[in-house]
Amino acid sequence: MFCFRKKRGVFTVLLLLMGSMLFAQESNEPSLSMSLDTLWLVLCAALVFFMQAGFAMVETGLTRAKNAGNIIMKNLMDFAGGSLVFWALGWGLMYGQDWGGFIGFSDFFPNQEPILMRDWFFQAVFAATAATIVSGAMAERTKFVSYLAYSVVLTGLIYPISGHWIWNAEGWLATMGFHDFAGSTVVHGLGGAAALAGALILGPRTGKYVMAQGKKASMPIMGHNLPLAALGVFILWFGWYGFNAGSTLSGTDSSISIIVVTTTLAAAAGAIASMITVWILNGKPDVSMSLNGALAGLVAITAPCAVVSNRAAVVIGVIAGILVVFSVEFLDKVLHIDDPVGAVSVHGICGIWGTIAVGIFGDLEKLGSGLSRWQQIGVQGLGTVSVTFWSFFGASLLFLLISKTLGLRVQEEEELAGLDLDEHGIEAYAGFQIFQTD
Amino acid sequence: MFCFRKKRGVFTVLLLLMGSMLFAQESNEPSLSMSLDTLWLVLCAALVFFMQAGFAMVETGLTRAKNAGNIIMKNLMDFAGGSLVFWALGWGLMYGQDWGGFIGFSDFFPNQEPILMRDWFFQAVFAATAATIVSGAMAERTKFVSYLAYSVVLTGLIYPISGHWIWNAEGWLATMGFHDFAGSTVVHGLGGAAALAGALILGPRTGKYVMAQGKKASMPIMGHNLPLAALGVFILWFGWYGFNAGSTLSGTDSSISIIVVTTTLAAAAGAIASMITVWILNGKPDVSMSLNGALAGLVAITAPCAVVSNRAAVVIGVIAGILVVFSVEFLDKVLHIDDPVGAVSVHGICGIWGTIAVGIFGDLEKLGSGLSRWQQIGVQGLGTVSVTFWSFFGASLLFLLISKTLGLRVQEEEELAGLDLDEHGIEAYAGFQIFQTD
Amino acid sequence: MFCFRKKRGVFTVLLLLMGSMLFAQESNEPSLSMSLDTLWLVLCAALVFFMQAGFAMVETGLTRAKNAGNIIMKNLMDFAGGSLVFWALGWGLMYGQDWGGFIGFSDFFPNQEPILMRDWFFQAVFAATAATIVSGAMAERTKFVSYLAYSVVLTGLIYPISGHWIWNAEGWLATMGFHDFAGSTVVHGLGGAAALAGALILGPRTGKYVMAQGKKASMPIMGHNLPLAALGVFILWFGWYGFNAGSTLSGTDSSISIIVVTTTLAAAAGAIASMITVWILNGKPDVSMSLNGALAGLVAITAPCAVVSNRAAVVIGVIAGILVVFSVEFLDKVLHIDDPVGAVSVHGICGIWGTIAVGIFGDLEKLGSGLSRWQQIGVQGLGTVSVTFWSFFGASLLFLLISKTLGLRVQEEEELAGLDLDEHGIEAYAGFQIFQTD
Repeated sequence: MFCFRKKRGVFTVLLLLMGSMLFAQESNEPSLSMSLDTLWLVLCAALVFFMQAGFAMVETGLTRAKNAGNIIMKNLMDFAGGSLVFWALGWGLMYGQDWGGFIGFSDFFPNQEPILMRDWFFQAVFAATAATIVSGAMAERTKFVSYLAYSVVLTGLIYPISGHWIWNAEGWLATMGFHDFAGSTVVHGLGGAAALAGALILGPRTGKYVMAQGKKASMPIMGHNLPLAALGVFILWFGWYGFNAGSTLSGTDSSISIIVVTTTLAAAAGAIASMITVWILNGKPDVSMSLNGALAGLVAITAPCAVVSNRAAVVIGVIAGILVVFSVEFLDKVLHIDDPVGAVSVHGICGIWGTIAVGIFGDLEKLGSGLSRWQQIGVQGLGTVSVTFWSFFGASLLFLLISKTLGLRVQEEEELAGLDLDEHGIEAYAGFQIFQTD
Repeated sequence: MFCFRKKRGVFTVLLLLMGSMLFAQESNEPSLSMSLDTLWLVLCAALVFFMQAGFAMVETGLTRAKNAGNIIMKNLMDFAGGSLVFWALGWGLMYGQDWGGFIGFSDFFPNQEPILMRDWFFQAVFAATAATIVSGAMAERTKFVSYLAYSVVLTGLIYPISGHWIWNAEGWLATMGFHDFAGSTVVHGLGGAAALAGALILGPRTGKYVMAQGKKASMPIMGHNLPLAALGVFILWFGWYGFNAGSTLSGTDSSISIIVVTTTLAAAAGAIASMITVWILNGKPDVSMSLNGALAGLVAITAPCAVVSNRAAVVIGVIAGILVVFSVEFLDKVLHIDDPVGAVSVHGICGIWGTIAVGIFGDLEKLGSGLSRWQQIGVQGLGTVSVTFWSFFGASLLFLLISKTLGLRVQEEEELAGLDLDEHGIEAYAGFQIFQTD
Repeated sequence: MFCFRKKRGVFTVLLLLMGSMLFAQESNEPSLSMSLDTLWLVLCAALVFFMQAGFAMVETGLTRAKNAGNIIMKNLMDFAGGSLVFWALGWGLMYGQDWGGFIGFSDFFPNQEPILMRDWFFQAVFAATAATIVSGAMAERTKFVSYLAYSVVLTGLIYPISGHWIWNAEGWLATMGFHDFAGSTVVHGLGGAAALAGALILGPRTGKYVMAQGKKASMPIMGHNLPLAALGVFILWFGWYGFNAGSTLSGTDSSISIIVVTTTLAAAAGAIASMITVWILNGKPDVSMSLNGALAGLVAITAPCAVVSNRAAVVIGVIAGILVVFSVEFLDKVLHIDDPVGAVSVHGICGIWGTIAVGIFGDLEKLGSGLSRWQQIGVQGLGTVSVTFWSFFGASLLFLLISKTLGLRVQEEEELAGLDLDEHGIEAYAGFQIFQTD
């Protein structure tokens, strides 16, 4: 029996043992409850898989038509490559035999044992999400082959190592009482930090920042298909029910019902808070920022979804929705970091916020870490900062390495013409009249 | 334990009590069956949530490109606002302590108790659907801020009150034996009636009706993206399995299997009937009308899905598919009411038809109301007419109120330029060459 | 109790009988396990239904804008017509009382009995898939009314007869030990062979092959919306978890966990193998071919998903991904058969490959046919060839019949103008500037 996602694993083993003792002679009860777990995890994992479509549509919709083919190609291939490498390597590093709390090492190429397979499937769709997050921040200027190389390393190496710290019962953060229920830090914080590294090292898209009156000014680059972006957000929100409620890892856990509600309320609050914030700042309610607000709420509630009240979920969502607006503006207007879809702000900043919110709003009894509130906040901070650093520096090293070898960025002419033409030899919208918008 | 959706609630309580008595000493059977209920309701609710994406795509696809951003924004925000207000207020009015069969009043801001949370989630996604229906009929000319105000009141006040009459065991229609399994009247009839009120008070889109030879002539205004509209219909159909089969409110109810089949057959029959009807009338099979035919069948089977035979389901779908065509033509060509996506006909007219079909085709034993067939038909008629009136007049009052304060309709210049530009300051398809089509 | 999908049906009956004997006096255990089966099958069937949206988006995206309305109309209507005819006729021919192993005959218009309804629903969504496959190969030039006629006969007659051979426990291939777990041959091979017949009899699209220097040269006809095609592939992949894992026909079967993993790995391997193959051949990684590679892997793993190791799944996917590229090129460049979306290669060729792969890689013990490896390979080959012939000649006869009566192909002017205009009197993208691209 595999023991994963801190505490719950051990707990399940105990329950199952108790169950088998109790019912061994008279019923197949434990097996029914195990079947329920399997159905639940498999269906939730399928929902999380479907989030890949959501990411692809959001990223495509918020960027330009001339790069749409490249973007869907990246989103398809990071899942394809990611799931293979997470099978070969990543799972073993994350959930394998612990080495000093820092890394696992065993169970590479897992095979056939049903419970192991089920657990692998659920974790693999999470792993693939992390790489996808980064692709948004690096959109419209990254070489395709370099993207492939990077996404395989992220899913096979960077993600599982910090994942081990938190979701392997013997990971050093797990043993300290760090709580990240469904991955505000493990998945989103990690993805956001790598996204920041990527955006910094790549530099902005050509034409994004121009010198005007001695100052760098940020030029808006509009997405080409908002209905597609909205569809993507709805798909992500839909899949997030699997992401968060599936992280009970059990189909009989009554907190499932609580999680779907906190998730809904935080997402709703995030969307509204972002809309109002932009409305006040710019005088109009912006569509893509409101879409990002919903995602911000979802990212933030991911860590605390099982241990906070509904009121707290609303507060967490509202703060996430406001944070994401200021973060996007700050990165763009002050730091001049070009993140085409706002991935750093949505996943990085709100991932950190959600992780710390566990400490602030979490029910200490449910957390069961034995820590005081301030201690819990401290551990949450330590955990999310550690993973952020790990991911940022790991990814930076990786991008610099790729930069020196394969090259990270396409030529300027290619960027201007669009990556679809030069990288893939196609047009995404053949027959439509499309203007250059850079 | 909450008692909701007439009879079934009570029945479940009894079953659970019997269950606990039988198995208390020897097995955790009842808890497994409860887990099954939870998984079923949560997954079905997630499917119903996903219908929001379907509504957004249908409405966007069937209207013009210049308003696409506004439309997805409305669809996102009515769910966000709706779920928050249904949490704060709506649930308490619908399922709270009954006052004379007309309204509930307790349990505002429900929190934490798992079964309560599960039930809230399932009902909240239904509540949010009602508002979304209206947005279609009012598309392309409504002020965004007014839409927000209206949708919050509909979801928080108008919907839960008539919902209480029917789905709270003590509601006055419930006690009379009125049967609306999954909401042909509660959700769709209500939404359709409010949509009619909105379309009437707003008036038609500029350029929709022109005087020609002394007569008002209806000008076609083509939708800008049929593939998106079709995707929306497929998503709605997919989600409808959660909508109808989830309304068993139990994962162990064997009528789940029957419901998915009646739902499938009615939708299929509706699509084909609409296609053939238009083919005969206009000489060509129309795409958007066939899409609406599938939705018409789905709306109509929503009330009777659990109590009719497969043959009856086909008949109900065929009649809905024919009805929707004539209703759309009648509203447009004779009454000159401009409903851009046919929401009044699809949801209102077919919602009424489906509710009455319960009386005509329903298995009296399964209905269990003790009424004769003619009595049942009478009660069904009374119920659907009551809710239609309530919704039409409630919504009319609301729209007139908004009209006098915030203003309901955008300026003509803004309408001509598209709501995206003036309301949100964006273009939904930046870079594409798009012509004015009004 | 219905006995379907070879062996498993019988096995389930036995288990249930044993279960009822064991638990009859003390618990409702067997009913809970039956509820689990119902939830699982209904949810998986809903996922398979959703694949209709995937097929519609793939086919629309990979063809031209001027036919987009026609394509979604076909995809909607083949499901609508298909589910009605599979209710009236198909189910009875497939799962009815066996006549000599070749056809079933009973249970037309099945009604009301819950387990029967559940099983019908699951099978109906499979049946509808077969017709949809064909529509891709015949896109952009088939008369709409002829498409309707053909799709009803395929779903009501051609599909259920060969389906009977394999998935009815008394079918002649079933009794020989032929294994097709979820339909590489039953659904995809059949669909691919009919697609080939259709493409051959229709002939290529106008302008697809031109004489240049005494040789026929193939002209590329680009799809008009790659993001939509990608969305379709993600939806198909998502739905495929229901397609394959649902084919356990039981919610308590532990092979569910194994199946989702082999399915994931084969799809991933297929996508990557196709990408690399094209990259080597043409110097650039092609988007639509990579999308088809993922589908190729999915089609191939459909038959063997439950009886092969993960390593074998990867190999099966890789070979499918390579096969599909060469098959597409061969059909187009050498045979000059115009299959706009690659349906013959994806579903036909990879369906055959997956069926034979059962013999090569399948665990003989799990297969339980009592055959040696070479015998199993032989039976797999015999089965897939038989169905391919049946489907190819059955469909050819049907298309020729339609050709002589209704006419199969639209007029050339109509084809050039686009089927949307003449067949349906609409434009799919009203307001967008679109160029003729043929």
